[in-house]
Amino acid sequence: MVFKQKIQIRPLGVEPVYRQIADALRNAILSGELKEGDRLPPEAEFAASLSVNSRTLRKGLAILSAQKLITQTRGRGTLVSFPQRKLTRIGLAVGSDAVPYGPYTLQMLSEIMRYSTSHPEIQLTLLSENDPEKVSTRIQETGCDALIILISAKAIQRKLCEPEFDSLPMVFINSRVEDLARFGRYEVKTAQGAMGMGVEKLFEMGHRRIAFVSQEASPKDFVMASYHQDFLAACKKYRISTRYARLGKITENWYDIGHDRTVELFSAEKRPTAILTPGITFSSGAWQGLSDLGIKIPDDVSFIGANPIKEYNPNMSGLFVPIRRIAEKAIELVLDQFVPGKHLKQKVYEFPVEFLDFGSCRPLQRA
Amino acid sequence: MVFKQKIQIRPLGVEPVYRQIADALRNAILSGELKEGDRLPPEAEFAASLSVNSRTLRKGLAILSAQKLITQTRGRGTLVSFPQRKLTRIGLAVGSDAVPYGPYTLQMLSEIMRYSTSHPEIQLTLLSENDPEKVSTRIQETGCDALIILISAKAIQRKLCEPEFDSLPMVFINSRVEDLARFGRYEVKTAQGAMGMGVEKLFEMGHRRIAFVSQEASPKDFVMASYHQDFLAACKKYRISTRYARLGKITENWYDIGHDRTVELFSAEKRPTAILTPGITFSSGAWQGLSDLGIKIPDDVSFIGANPIKEYNPNMSGLFVPIRRIAEKAIELVLDQFVPGKHLKQKVYEFPVEFLDFGSCRPLQRA
Repeated sequence: MVFKQKIQIRPLGVEPVYRQIADALRNAILSGELKEGDRLPPEAEFAASLSVNSRTLRKGLAILSAQKLITQTRGRGTLVSFPQRKLTRIGLAVGSDAVPYGPYTLQMLSEIMRYSTSHPEIQLTLLSENDPEKVSTRIQETGCDALIILISAKAIQRKLCEPEFDSLPMVFINSRVEDLARFGRYEVKTAQGAMGMGVEKLFEMGHRRIAFVSQEASPKDFVMASYHQDFLAACKKYRISTRYARLGKITENWYDIGHDRTVELFSAEKRPTAILTPGITFSSGAWQGLSDLGIKIPDDVSFIGANPIKEYNPNMSGLFVPIRRIAEKAIELVLDQFVPGKHLKQKVYEFPVEFLDFGSCRPLQRA
Repeated sequence: MVFKQKIQIRPLGVEPVYRQIADALRNAILSGELKEGDRLPPEAEFAASLSVNSRTLRKGLAILSAQKLITQTRGRGTLVSFPQRKLTRIGLAVGSDAVPYGPYTLQMLSEIMRYSTSHPEIQLTLLSENDPEKVSTRIQETGCDALIILISAKAIQRKLCEPEFDSLPMVFINSRVEDLARFGRYEVKTAQGAMGMGVEKLFEMGHRRIAFVSQEASPKDFVMASYHQDFLAACKKYRISTRYARLGKITENWYDIGHDRTVELFSAEKRPTAILTPGITFSSGAWQGLSDLGIKIPDDVSFIGANPIKEYNPNMSGLFVPIRRIAEKAIELVLDQFVPGKHLKQKVYEFPVEFLDFGSCRPLQRA
């Protein structure tokens, strides 16, 4: 070891010499030049090589010892003992078929990252793999200790339910695979009934003619169907008409559905007094449609969108997937699986959507 | 080793016995139950323990050997030789002060992730650390081989320019620190002059009264000032008036600036025929402002926004930061730094913004 070159002592420097020694060694340890288990030269030799006296060297080493960066043992000399924290490496399985990701996935990633900064023992690693046959190798290569499955092909999700992965702590976020708990897997998700909350809010404000603009159910995607079911169930509950629901075809562009169906509904004679849409793209189209017709929000119509982004439209009240709460719960649930003997009550944790009022709704003024 | 329990042979199964053996061993190796260097039992003993004949066992082992998962050597027996690829672990330094991240950062992350999926030798790891004193330790703990610095406090960026990090390959993306090249650091960024391209497009379409809505320069953030300079320089070049530029105060909300200044400009008598805005939030506000005035786009006014998101407003033509090209170049530039002796021509790589036409501009109809 060539300490002479590493440690430049400036006897006339502002910093005392013992502190210069401590700082230089500390940097060498933290930067990896000196590694755990490395032995420092015997004291007298070391002091001589630095042209300092032993007392000064000892004073410097005492600082490092207090910082637990070295261990001084009689007989065995001074060893570098960089206290390598054991990081929990959490793989974020995000799939590679859906990139670049939509706003929902990106916000979820962002919130997971944000929350992880308050847990310095966590290291987040991105795991993009869509080939079920390769996922095992990939997990091993990346050294993941746990997984958060954000979005992924069903084939990957099913693969991760196999017994081979039973000992790998994992949490699925808003998975569309129904029977994860059956395989002993944990799940954090948005509670059903989001559109019901929207109907309830509008109903409480006196609205009875509520438009609903969405897309018809697709054989591949049951989410739209469930939103529509939500809406119908809530209408039944509050005994209001379902006649203002309009579903675009699965071949149509979502923005155009939002725009065109809204224009259609609000051009008719007895028009709705409120509108509810289950997604940001429908919502944007619908908002523009009303704007094009010269219909004022909220004066002429109350508007509830889904997951609007405040930057783009700070005036749109909406139903928000509680992304932050889901992200935080997912990380906690992963970490809980590392606590020996910790009993986790549930397999599935659900969070309802949140209604945030940015001013596009108001109580109906009865004529 | 308890192979009997691991390998369940079903003599009457659909799969031939030798293949069942190969699959079971393969799973044990890939899942980490069997590790590199582990020795399999001697052939006769192994075959007997599985109740198969030696020929069947050999047939199974031959498959694994071909897959390079085991090595059969005379005298030393059969060793597990899982071919551990060396992954390059790239840390994405994203800062923890800016989370949850804005659309720009999230899209950049998304594009980096997307591009990395085509490089299976890359592992992306998130590095959130804003304390310059801790960044060295953090890099070591996470085992990063390289860094892509996406957004971060200037203090961190300056820290990463210190000699301590000279041997760590790194690339800065759209950094606001001016003198990175001086420290031998690589940089990928959006070329200056974005607003100039907007003025040029509008000028070519015959527009001479071009509105520009932005925010006044802030002492902390020179980006807005540079956009304004861009605009003024382009107006000078094309000899058009700069009188339709409106800058909001730094205390004002960006959406409101976009909305209110636009309404102001377009309520006056001699109104602009086109509008240019340097950010998505100004753009959204300006679009709504025109909509509120009943001014039709592009019939009455041509509109160029910056970085609109198609989902929210598929009709807004805009100037786009070439996020994908920047992300790809950053990854390539990191990997290039690992190629011994590879000569990299430049320290700074710039990409101009791209103009994407979604229909909100059109040539001026002369009255």
